[in-house]
Amino acid sequence: MLVVMKRDATPGDIYSVKEKIASMGFAAHEMPGAQRVAIGITGNKGKINPELFNLMSGVEEAISVSKPYMLVGRDAKPDNTEISIDDEVIGGKELAIIAGPCSVESYEQLMQTADAVREAGAKFLRGGAFKPRTSPYAFQGMKAEGLALLREARERTGLKIVTEVKDVQTLSAVAEVADVIQIGARNMHNFSLLEAAGELRKPILLKRGISATIEELLMSAEYILARGNKNVILCERGIRTFEPYTRNTLDLNAIPVVKKLSHLPIIVDPSHGIGMWDCVSAMALAGVAAGADGLMIEVHPDPPVALSDGYQSLKPSKFRELMEKVRQVAGVVDRSVAAEVTE
Amino acid sequence: MLVVMKRDATPGDIYSVKEKIASMGFAAHEMPGAQRVAIGITGNKGKINPELFNLMSGVEEAISVSKPYMLVGRDAKPDNTEISIDDEVIGGKELAIIAGPCSVESYEQLMQTADAVREAGAKFLRGGAFKPRTSPYAFQGMKAEGLALLREARERTGLKIVTEVKDVQTLSAVAEVADVIQIGARNMHNFSLLEAAGELRKPILLKRGISATIEELLMSAEYILARGNKNVILCERGIRTFEPYTRNTLDLNAIPVVKKLSHLPIIVDPSHGIGMWDCVSAMALAGVAAGADGLMIEVHPDPPVALSDGYQSLKPSKFRELMEKVRQVAGVVDRSVAAEVTE
Amino acid sequence: MLVVMKRDATPGDIYSVKEKIASMGFAAHEMPGAQRVAIGITGNKGKINPELFNLMSGVEEAISVSKPYMLVGRDAKPDNTEISIDDEVIGGKELAIIAGPCSVESYEQLMQTADAVREAGAKFLRGGAFKPRTSPYAFQGMKAEGLALLREARERTGLKIVTEVKDVQTLSAVAEVADVIQIGARNMHNFSLLEAAGELRKPILLKRGISATIEELLMSAEYILARGNKNVILCERGIRTFEPYTRNTLDLNAIPVVKKLSHLPIIVDPSHGIGMWDCVSAMALAGVAAGADGLMIEVHPDPPVALSDGYQSLKPSKFRELMEKVRQVAGVVDRSVAAEVTE
Amino acid sequence: MLVVMKRDATPGDIYSVKEKIASMGFAAHEMPGAQRVAIGITGNKGKINPELFNLMSGVEEAISVSKPYMLVGRDAKPDNTEISIDDEVIGGKELAIIAGPCSVESYEQLMQTADAVREAGAKFLRGGAFKPRTSPYAFQGMKAEGLALLREARERTGLKIVTEVKDVQTLSAVAEVADVIQIGARNMHNFSLLEAAGELRKPILLKRGISATIEELLMSAEYILARGNKNVILCERGIRTFEPYTRNTLDLNAIPVVKKLSHLPIIVDPSHGIGMWDCVSAMALAGVAAGADGLMIEVHPDPPVALSDGYQSLKPSKFRELMEKVRQVAGVVDRSVAAEVTE
Repeated sequence: MLVVMKRDATPGDIYSVKEKIASMGFAAHEMPGAQRVAIGITGNKGKINPELFNLMSGVEEAISVSKPYMLVGRDAKPDNTEISIDDEVIGGKELAIIAGPCSVESYEQLMQTADAVREAGAKFLRGGAFKPRTSPYAFQGMKAEGLALLREARERTGLKIVTEVKDVQTLSAVAEVADVIQIGARNMHNFSLLEAAGELRKPILLKRGISATIEELLMSAEYILARGNKNVILCERGIRTFEPYTRNTLDLNAIPVVKKLSHLPIIVDPSHGIGMWDCVSAMALAGVAAGADGLMIEVHPDPPVALSDGYQSLKPSKFRELMEKVRQVAGVVDRSVAAEVTE
Repeated sequence: MLVVMKRDATPGDIYSVKEKIASMGFAAHEMPGAQRVAIGITGNKGKINPELFNLMSGVEEAISVSKPYMLVGRDAKPDNTEISIDDEVIGGKELAIIAGPCSVESYEQLMQTADAVREAGAKFLRGGAFKPRTSPYAFQGMKAEGLALLREARERTGLKIVTEVKDVQTLSAVAEVADVIQIGARNMHNFSLLEAAGELRKPILLKRGISATIEELLMSAEYILARGNKNVILCERGIRTFEPYTRNTLDLNAIPVVKKLSHLPIIVDPSHGIGMWDCVSAMALAGVAAGADGLMIEVHPDPPVALSDGYQSLKPSKFRELMEKVRQVAGVVDRSVAAEVTE
Repeated sequence: MLVVMKRDATPGDIYSVKEKIASMGFAAHEMPGAQRVAIGITGNKGKINPELFNLMSGVEEAISVSKPYMLVGRDAKPDNTEISIDDEVIGGKELAIIAGPCSVESYEQLMQTADAVREAGAKFLRGGAFKPRTSPYAFQGMKAEGLALLREARERTGLKIVTEVKDVQTLSAVAEVADVIQIGARNMHNFSLLEAAGELRKPILLKRGISATIEELLMSAEYILARGNKNVILCERGIRTFEPYTRNTLDLNAIPVVKKLSHLPIIVDPSHGIGMWDCVSAMALAGVAAGADGLMIEVHPDPPVALSDGYQSLKPSKFRELMEKVRQVAGVVDRSVAAEVTE
Repeated sequence: MLVVMKRDATPGDIYSVKEKIASMGFAAHEMPGAQRVAIGITGNKGKINPELFNLMSGVEEAISVSKPYMLVGRDAKPDNTEISIDDEVIGGKELAIIAGPCSVESYEQLMQTADAVREAGAKFLRGGAFKPRTSPYAFQGMKAEGLALLREARERTGLKIVTEVKDVQTLSAVAEVADVIQIGARNMHNFSLLEAAGELRKPILLKRGISATIEELLMSAEYILARGNKNVILCERGIRTFEPYTRNTLDLNAIPVVKKLSHLPIIVDPSHGIGMWDCVSAMALAGVAAGADGLMIEVHPDPPVALSDGYQSLKPSKFRELMEKVRQVAGVVDRSVAAEVTE
């Protein structure tokens, strides 16, 4: 159930609706919009009679929601969600450019990459400290040491840090360093982690699971919003199909579809999506043309020696060239990208 | 086996190599390139000793081909294939814009659409006269009558005609009217039809099967080239995945991958690919940004009454708007699109 | 629309209904059942008013069909279809065992295999004379010569012949030799071939396309039945999924589902389905346990030298062992398999 | 690296090899077999020189492992793993029959089901107390209260308890009650949970992820074995494919493939696999015929009122009928099933 308030509803009207919902034993979720407020109701098992709200002061209409999600949907909040991180915004006119190595590997590797992506115009540095890996014998990340290096990189460059959390146990350590906490594709259905992330107020970058439908991605975001954290950024990073040539099939169709269904921002990770460095730029440009709110790109100063995902990483020079084209395509679709830093 | 000739090989050198191949009972396929000629050998069952050619006059090297395809690969012909259709070229700098209704339905519907897409800058008119349909009870197209209307539309507008052939039996009738003969996704593995198309010299637009790998698409093109028809245009039109929200999953990853592996042009059909008119423009722009050589877009003057695929068709006004954006994205990736016709 | 007749409807009642349908410009398809007759109506574009038939003599009820198929559905014919081929029946209590090489390769290979599978209890010999192949350079079958060998094998062993038709052009040649005409997975959506097969009255073995849904398989069978050929046997042979270890994913789920939806018999091809000889027996037994009406198994006297599919072929001795187990599992699910021939 | 010991290697020989591995800073995993012992080495980043072990006393050979898994592979342990749970064994001749409701819902529901499945011959009771659900608003299980009911059901019936763990936080509570701890499909890539399960010695039932390859399933089992818990039972429960009619596509191909690659037992869950109660029996029988080591079947006394998965649950009477057929098919493939309890 969604109670849509009138444009001129007073704070008192809103308070009354929320109180009534609480008195019924349900949870009220206030969703402020540019034009009006909507209040989602969760916790009910059966249908709620809309008449209970329709006659209250300030209520435009109470509508039953047939889609399985509610808080993430456009019905609940018609205008785009913009997420502020200090002076940066994700979901606004400027595209969020997140770049950096797959894994934090060393001081030199991280600082060299951070400097390079900052100069090319990125505002966010990615880098994994805790790495979920298919094999128990593969490099699992530098862990706490990696987090410390990321903190240092932020101090050095001013870049915001995007890094992945692997489990509930290490969430608070990651949250201390990260400006945006990434939940990876393999954890998209880790509901306990989603719930814990929902208790935070830091932005969460939620990646689509390798075989998750768009609706399932939205439902996982709903888990986070239902706990009160409205700062969720979705990320398309490729799905598993029958095609063996590419690592995954980057599903850019998800961009216009998510934009239609949800108010949350969505970015694209072409590096994991196609998995071959020489095809990353084409897919990055395509993602921006399709309407994505940002890009997440793997950049490594020396891809052949990377401890993970070297084959899909761009060299800094290649990244800088890509950024120039990204700026131009962004302009065509009424978006912008920060300029190169030329000092 | 591929015999790559030297840049200064004489016509006599080339003749000698082809004669030698013929004397061994195999077929020789001359592949002229901008810089040099390569000669493909097919028909052999086992390995051929490269030494038989390496010492001949004008031969640079004879190389064994490990990929399953040969004539369609970049090894055989490093530079892009450009296909001329009178004064139009597919695969050159200018993008091929193919637009029109899914099915030819009536004189008014076709002429109205043809006029509109021509004015918006399209150079090719699409429209199905023979329609392969999943149900035997669905509209199967206007057939011969539809072909006659397409011929009339060409005379009226000057647009080149792209129309689908459904089977070998109707191939010659279709070939008489079509400037480009389309082989649809469900016929990508109809080898008898591919062979018949290979005997023609008209351009063939070969659509990727709904569950065909990129390599299988190239192998089907190889069937056509192996019979001597080098005028093949590939088309990505969406693959079948687990995602239920979109009609298909338009696989734009195929664009940079095909560009890497093959010299053939490849275009994108976002209408079938995503299957929802309000998402077609996003995917069309993404396809151009990804490097496609053209677009195939369904346009209908009155989508709700279309006999097939109305839900994914653009109205003429929407198509014109899209074309304006396509022109701009094309410019970013060093391509161009014909201007609107403003008389 | 489906007109279900009463149990005691007279031939005259049935005739009247069919005449009425014809007078409306539609086609009537009589579907005789054990208990009652149903008459399918096709060719109508819009809804037909059921009242037009409900009051006629001998009519039980006229029901609108919401599923996209009609003639193949259980609504049209509740009891199982049994297909007679001389003295053999497919779809009855005895399982149809079809065995033999992927391709006909030589006199010795075919006769040796035919003798062996006959002795093990098979009643049908498979063997391809026309082979659809992904590569234009792969062995395409012995063609007419292969058909002649199959004819000879039938004379020698009494086995019925199951062989694949590749296109409309060679259909009559294949139909002359085949007792059951196979339409392969890649032709399941070759509608012109389906229509031509529908004009025949010989049994058609229709294989599920590699990415065809169960409903699409039924729709392709509908094409054949709609032309009057009711002798269709479906075949599950593996679908394309993300799993790379097996050649295909044999989808045994299709067996109980097809049994629920359709009256047509369905058999299983575990050889193509899983694609590894040492796993074929497990999947064959599983297919019988799941309720299949028969098995199609590749058997080759010397798999390593087979011109196609050697890796998935059983040796005759292994096939004989499998048959012994098949007999026992068949007994558990109230089916039977012919005994070994021991003279 | 895998060090295979001679059949007559002494405990002292084995000790020396393990000590040498430890001295190199790696971990040694002793894998006792019926005929000989193998010792797996993990923790090394590069190749280890086999010569370091080949000359040691009692060593048959030291072999490099090219597959990504080691401890779960047949190379490490050629004979089947049998897992003892008090007086029951999973992976031996007798099939493990696990049955019960999807979710524990009430005292009556659980005890009634437990009594019924015990009488039909099941030795294990399934029932979820912690339920991972796609929607945050769906029933999430009775949690601690559900565990208490499961404990009571064990005391009442003697059935062993199989119940799912959702996260690391509740693992110890679940482990206190469960005889077999289930890790569900959505947690197959929850590496932190796998590691925690690896620290236990209780048997773990690891379900295949909905889009996990067979190799990935084995890698997740490897995570558990690498921590020292060798008691892992795999479970095929259906994969996600393009087919919309069935809930999932139960991939029985995984049974013979896993049997070939791994020594671990594997069971089948046809209820989730096909997702329709009237097709469950066919797939259960097929699973046994394919060689599974057991079945996991959803049984509910009143499916239409189940809080989850009612549509795929069997009634007790139907389950008893199925068990009778399962016993017969088991006999054909040299397996057995406990008799009905008739007192």
